[in-house]
This record gives sequence, structure tokens and C-alpha cells, in this order.
Amino acid sequence: MKIKMAKSYGFCFGVERAIKMAEKTRDAITFGPLIHNEKETKRLEQGFNVFVENDTKNVRENQSVIIRTHGITKQDLATLRQNRAKIIDATCPFVITPQKIVEKMSAENYGIVIFGDKNHPEIKGVMSYAKNPIVVNGVEELLDVQIPKKVALVSQTTKQMEKFQDLAMNLMQRCAEVRIFNTICNATFDNQEAVKELSQEVDVMIIVGGRASSNTKQLGFIAQKYCKDSYLIEDENDLRTEWFVGKNLCGITAGASTPDWIVQKVAKIIEKM
Amino acid sequence: MKIKMAKSYGFCFGVERAIKMAEKTRDAITFGPLIHNEKETKRLEQGFNVFVENDTKNVRENQSVIIRTHGITKQDLATLRQNRAKIIDATCPFVITPQKIVEKMSAENYGIVIFGDKNHPEIKGVMSYAKNPIVVNGVEELLDVQIPKKVALVSQTTKQMEKFQDLAMNLMQRCAEVRIFNTICNATFDNQEAVKELSQEVDVMIIVGGRASSNTKQLGFIAQKYCKDSYLIEDENDLRTEWFVGKNLCGITAGASTPDWIVQKVAKIIEKM
Repeated sequence: MKIKMAKSYGFCFGVERAIKMAEKTRDAITFGPLIHNEKETKRLEQGFNVFVENDTKNVRENQSVIIRTHGITKQDLATLRQNRAKIIDATCPFVITPQKIVEKMSAENYGIVIFGDKNHPEIKGVMSYAKNPIVVNGVEELLDVQIPKKVALVSQTTKQMEKFQDLAMNLMQRCAEVRIFNTICNATFDNQEAVKELSQEVDVMIIVGGRASSNTKQLGFIAQKYCKDSYLIEDENDLRTEWFVGKNLCGITAGASTPDWIVQKVAKIIEKM
Repeated sequence: MKIKMAKSYGFCFGVERAIKMAEKTRDAITFGPLIHNEKETKRLEQGFNVFVENDTKNVRENQSVIIRTHGITKQDLATLRQNRAKIIDATCPFVITPQKIVEKMSAENYGIVIFGDKNHPEIKGVMSYAKNPIVVNGVEELLDVQIPKKVALVSQTTKQMEKFQDLAMNLMQRCAEVRIFNTICNATFDNQEAVKELSQEVDVMIIVGGRASSNTKQLGFIAQKYCKDSYLIEDENDLRTEWFVGKNLCGITAGASTPDWIVQKVAKIIEKM
């Protein structure tokens, strides 16, 4: 099987930075999984004694706590500080931006609209900095909601530009002022553009990434549009030979939280098919 | 011929207000035509001694000067004040809004993008309040222009929402922050919605308004989309009988600066056809 890698795929700046911080810190806990990839989380456990902790109450004084790339809520951060944990902030700078924006815009009495998934840790974090935010996952959820005259709009870093634009278009018809902060991450965008291009020229498309990873799912949605034989896998064990029967060219991409060592394993196995 | 009037047409709030101000003032000049309708301008001349003047230099001390609905430039206003004219400001409040916005946003170092026609008096006025504004009449004119990271976007009050949205969509992909001020006037929007609806159900569509009137032209563009037999006329003298041959239902609308007495004359003549 011939393979072709996406022009842009895998680890983004924020994830690479967080992993380096974790490897350097050692003997620490991360509050929530550092990145949305179980294999990588396990590697950090085994190689660097960095464990996942999910409850702020279990954090001891002086314990090194690495804040995950997606950020945490304002309240949890306050609790960690109160408990005198040693905080190593690996929140992606691109996630800190919408946190700061909604805090400032709330203080200036703008209504806050967040384009994102309420249940995603990044959005839980961003929401915690806003006064009464309206959180929607698409324009259809916005239609029946009462909207203030002046609003600020931010996006989850991993969302699609087109859907963000749909929201903006709706708001600008209903509001006197809409402040649009494009907080979609370029890295995400680059990976999305690359998968759009690649999935149009291949017979089968493999997307490697964690099942909880929002940006990996997005890559899957985009690939599916252009190549109906698109498959999301966590690692090489998910590969099924029947996907490749009668196919010539296989495209490969990976989410922003997928380490390259997993991608390389997958590529090697497909090549041999 | 059966006729059907658009649900919303003709004089807007700003024009009605300006005409009342002119009738009440009497013995005055308007700096540039008060509204874009020659017949109405003539009526004000003959009935109220209100004349059009185009050069600030000719304005004497203590002369009553009515500022047109479209507004004038900051510089012209300063000259009038310097010459101690008695200023009666009939600038539409909806036009003052974008003037104030671009002045404030320029002071806060936002790049200014104005959606409008450089040669229209309203836009000349708005431009005069901005530092280095980028003025475009559509998204295609924006593509090769270098855009600052933070921009504020306003619109000529008489423009179409869809094209304003196209501009916003382009900017939000290129900027970190876009402040969108929806300065499109509701009255314009109501007239546009009404002509869109009406032109789909009639055999022939008549749009009454001055040739220099931007919002009248817009109504014409929209009507043409849905009814190929759409005609712009200034008054009843422009009507041509051949337009109505073999037709049953005629729709009528009028621009925001078209006085109702002209519309009623037109309607009566078409009814008798």
C-alpha cells in the first residue's frame, strides 16, 4: 500500500510545550489528563512519574501540579493556590487568550457567546472566566436564545472556521455590536486544511488520535466529506485489513495530541499491507 | 391594472425628521441637497424658501444652515462653525452613529473598514472621522488590501446585510479581533425585505425614487433578482405604457427619500392602465 502523509498533522505547539514541561518537572501530577492521548499519558507515568489526578482535594502542599493544555476553571486554580500546590502552568497560550478575553469583555458588560462544547475541559475553563456565558455548539442552538445588544464571541481553539462564521453572521444581524475574537488555533486550521486536501486524492484515509480528542474528531468529519473510506484509530491495533482491500493510496493524518511515535508505527504497518 | 404596495416603502424616520426641520426653519440653506429627491427639494424651495448651497465659502454669518440627512465631513462642519453659521443638524441619527464609532475606534487604534461607496456623501462624512479608513464596496475589493490585526467594521446605512456579512466573514479569518458594528438601518432593511417578498408575486415591479438615491438603487437590484420586469422611475412622467402590456399585477415600492405624494400619483396612473 502506498501512503501519503498530510502536509500538516499531529502535535501542535501547545501540546509539545506541555509534554516538555512534564518531562522536565518529573514526579508531579497533572490535574486532569495533560493531553487527550492515553498512550502518551501512560508514557509520562512510566518514564517520568507524572500521574493524573482528578480531584483538587487530593492535592498536597508543595506538590508539583501541571495544569493541562486545555486549562482548568478559575475556581479549581484558586483551590490549588489555596492548597499551596506548586503550579506549573502548561495551559496552551492559545487557550489562555479566550479565557482572558471573556473575563475582560464580561467586565466591560458585553454578553459572552462561546462557540464550543460545554463538556470539554477547555470550554469549562473559558466559561469559568465569563459572566453568564451563552455556550453553543452551532448556530441552530443560538436561534431561540435572547441575545444582548453588545456581545463578544470567542471560539474553542479546535473548532471549524465555517461554523464560527455562521454564528458571527447570525449575531451581527441581531446585535448593535459584535466583537469577534478569532481564537481558532492556526495549528488546528493547518491540520484541517491539509486533511481536506489529502482526503480528496486518496482511496482510504486514516486519522490517528485519542477518542476524547475534539480536534481529531474534527479531522474525521472533514475527511469523511471527501473520502467515504475514512477511519479514526487510536493506534495500530485498531487497523483492519479489510479497509485496504482494492485500495492503492492511503492518506494519514493525526490529531494535535497524537505523538509522532504512534503515527510512525501506524504508517509502517499500512505500508507493508 | 391591479396594484399592490410593498408592506414597507418610502420615507424613513431620518428623512421625515429632516423635512420637518426644514419646513419649521424656513429661509435657510441646506448644505448639499437635504435628501436625494429633486422634486421634494424643489417643493422646499418654493414653499419654504429653503435652498441648496454646495460651497461652505458662500455661507454668511448667522445664516441658517440645515445639515443634510447624509451628514457632511468633519472639516466642512468646522468651516461652517468658523463662519458662525446657525447650524440646524438634520443628519440622520443612524448616520451619526457610524461617524462616532469610527472616530472612537480610530482613537483606540483599530483599523477602520467602511463598507460603502466612497463617492456617496454619507460615506465622505463617515470617512472624515476615521484615521486612514479602508473603504470598500464589496469583499472582492478587500482581498488584496493589507489589513491590521484589530479592525472595526461599519456599513453605509443603506447597504445590504448579505454583502456586509461577506466582508465580516473575510475579516474574521484574517484578524485577531473584528468589531462589527451593524450600522445598516432597519428602515432600509424593512423596505428591502418588503420588495424581496413583493417582487416574487407580481408581473411588473415599479420602484419610485431619485436617480442619486443609493437605497432606491438597492431596491431596484433586489427587485430585478425576482422580477425581470422591474423599473426605476423618478416620478409618473417616467412611466411607459408598454411595460404593462399583458401584465395583471403591478407591485410598487419607493426609496427612503421618496415623498409619498409622488408615490400616490404614480399608483393612481398605473391603476387606470
